[in-house]
Parts: sequence; structure tokens; C-alpha cells
Amino acid sequence: MPKLILVRHGQSQWNLENRFTGWWDVDLTEKGVAEAKAAGALMKEKGVFPTVCFTSYQTRAIKTLNLALEEMDRLWLPVIKDWRLNERHYGGLTGLDKQETRDKHGDEQVHIWRRSFDTPPPPMEPSSKYDPGADPRYEGIAVPNTESLKLTIERVLPYWESDILPVLRSGETVIISAHGNSLRALVKHLSNISDEDITGLEIPTGQPIVYDFDHDMVPGERYYLKDS
Amino acid sequence: MPKLILVRHGQSQWNLENRFTGWWDVDLTEKGVAEAKAAGALMKEKGVFPTVCFTSYQTRAIKTLNLALEEMDRLWLPVIKDWRLNERHYGGLTGLDKQETRDKHGDEQVHIWRRSFDTPPPPMEPSSKYDPGADPRYEGIAVPNTESLKLTIERVLPYWESDILPVLRSGETVIISAHGNSLRALVKHLSNISDEDITGLEIPTGQPIVYDFDHDMVPGERYYLKDS
Repeated sequence: MPKLILVRHGQSQWNLENRFTGWWDVDLTEKGVAEAKAAGALMKEKGVFPTVCFTSYQTRAIKTLNLALEEMDRLWLPVIKDWRLNERHYGGLTGLDKQETRDKHGDEQVHIWRRSFDTPPPPMEPSSKYDPGADPRYEGIAVPNTESLKLTIERVLPYWESDILPVLRSGETVIISAHGNSLRALVKHLSNISDEDITGLEIPTGQPIVYDFDHDMVPGERYYLKDS
Repeated sequence: MPKLILVRHGQSQWNLENRFTGWWDVDLTEKGVAEAKAAGALMKEKGVFPTVCFTSYQTRAIKTLNLALEEMDRLWLPVIKDWRLNERHYGGLTGLDKQETRDKHGDEQVHIWRRSFDTPPPPMEPSSKYDPGADPRYEGIAVPNTESLKLTIERVLPYWESDILPVLRSGETVIISAHGNSLRALVKHLSNISDEDITGLEIPTGQPIVYDFDHDMVPGERYYLKDS
């Protein structure tokens, strides 16, 4: 039966520094590396082995996947990378310290940007040093200049339907190594979570979340692999 | 214009221990990791960036590629893995110490097994602990039980023609991270090397080799990227 494993990347340098990251390509910290390896070790221990892998275009998610795969002797698995699994684009907040942003714009405004379903942060300035527009990985892609969770969902779900679901339907065990908000998009869809509730749902780093699907491709309750 | 970069994986644990490796899945040594990173740093320094990547099903080649890609901020590139780029299968010699094998079978016999174009080593015993037949990565694949260089070429070249050449023809810069003998197969083909001469051609570890192709897909002289 089809099985889906979701893993949020391990701690990144900017998670640690408490900065808005979005599409900026930061690396994992040592703790993040350890979390990724632990995710792989857990899958191996539980005997839950992916057969096809999806990830984003961002180093922290790709490395999390590679480290987990290496831990389970599965580096040889097929890996498909797509920008539509990227983190939500944080617009003009990218690179800013979260506390400084609160001090400048007020707690309430920052809470809205972080936790509103459909209010995007201010757009990124074209002159921003955090603009990924010139990055060769995004050549030919209409890079957003800011995204709400709603806008993130609007690019994640079509990719889920067109590229991931058919693989899952063919009976594979699919792993998706991605980001807090691209994974929220999937969890909202699969677990029928409301617009209001999804923005407060925390996806822990490096902790495999599993959905088992039935013959009609209806997902069961999601659960943490560690609890199974 | 299409460009092809060939990289042999960095030093592996069994290169270091002087054992016949073949399809056994050994890891890189610390030196091998450094060689892989240096290959990536060299490509970055020279501004020679692959756009599509191919590798084998073997950890040492995949890790070499991943480490090189990370060094050039290109982990997001598409990577296609295929068993037909695997090392030559060393049959019953797999796992044996090269010196012990010489002591047992004589220098001349070992030289024939290592350097003959078309004499394969004795087949691997089905009971061998080094038999990759039960490994899930080879499910559905007719795993050989020994290979000469000739037999290796007979699976590498059809894959080259069917899967790699069309990508190259479309104008991509292709990198292949693979093994001494699967790369010999390609170099023999691209540089028109005789059956006699190819077995003595050494492919150094972690040293990018480049072919530039013209409009008619005729490869130029091969060269080391470091010398360019």
C-alpha cells in the first residue's frame, strides 16, 4: 500500500540565528546534520524504507535527504528535485532578525506576516542581496517576490497532484524532504485542516511524519514514525 | 556547445586496503572525501558548471558527486543514477586482498584478471558474503556474477547511447561520476583507444576529465580540467 513520509529539514543556520529564511539558501547546522542522520536511523530501525524521493531546490532540504538516505544505505534511490517544494518566500523579511523585525514593526504586524493564511509579507526589493532571481537554479522560473501560506499552497498542491501523487498511486513509498510551509501545504490538504488552524501547526525538524493510503488513495491519520 | 566531464570517485576504503571492490558498496575514505570536494572546487574555480549529472548505484560515486556539487553550490542539479555506470564486477575476487590473491594464484594470473580485455575473473560464488544479488537496489536487475572490461563496456555503452548522449546533444554540460572501469569504457569509445591499450589506461581519482563536442557531436581531445 502507498505510504508517504514527510520530513522537514534539520536545523539551519538561520533557524539558529532566528532570521527569516524563505528562499535564501542557508546550510544545516551541526545539530541539523545530526537531526537528518537521526531521521534516517529511525526509518532504518522501523524498517520503513522510501523507494522514491522528492525534495526542493534548497540545500538544507537536499542535504537532509542525502544524510538520511546515507544513514539507511539508500543513497542510490531516485531523487526528484523541484522548486515547487521550496519554503514559502518571505519577501522583504528575508534575512531579517525576527526580534529586530518585531521591534521595528510591532509584535502584531509580525504575527500577521508569520501566521496569517493569506497576507503576504511586503515584497522583496529588486535590489535586495537576498533576491534569488539571479541564481542559476531558478533560470526560467517565475520566482515570486513574496508569498503567503495560501500562495505557497497554490504552487505546492498542483505539483503534488501532477508529479507526486501518480508515483504514490503506483504503490511506491514516497519521502518528501522539504520545509515548514511546503509541508504545511501538504498536511493541510491530506488532513483537511482549516485555513485558520494550519498557520499554527508546527512541523518539527527532522521528525518523519507518515500517512498510509488505502486502495482508493484516501490517506489515514498522520502519525510520527517515532510513535509507531 | 556540449561538454562532458568525467570524474572517478575519490579514494575508497578498499582502494586504501588494496582489496578488489567491484560491486561491493564501500564508502569513501577521508582522503576520498577531500578529493571529491577538491574536484568541485576546481570546477567552480574554472567556471565549468555541469547542468545534468549521472552516477552509478554505488555510494562512493554518488557521494563524490554530492560532495563536488555541494562545493559548487549546485546540489539542486538533476542527478540520474543507473547501475550500468557501476564499477566492473570483480566476480570471485571481490573482497580479496590483492597481494594475498597474487600469493595464491601467482602474479601472472592476477595480471590477466586485472588487465586482460576479455578474460573475466572466476565467477562469484552464490554463497559469497559479497554477493550484491540480495541488495534491494538491484531488484529486477540481472546482476552479473563476474565481468571482464569487455563485458563492462557492453552495458556502459548502450546506456551512454540511450540515456546520456541525447542529454548531451541537447546542449547540456553533463558530469558523470563513476568508476575506473565504467569510465574506461567511455574513454575507450570517445578517444578511440584499442582493446590492448585501454586496460593499461589509469583514470586518476577525483580528477575531472573533459571532452568538448562540436556541432556534429564529435568529441575533441580529452583533457584534465586542472590543465585547462
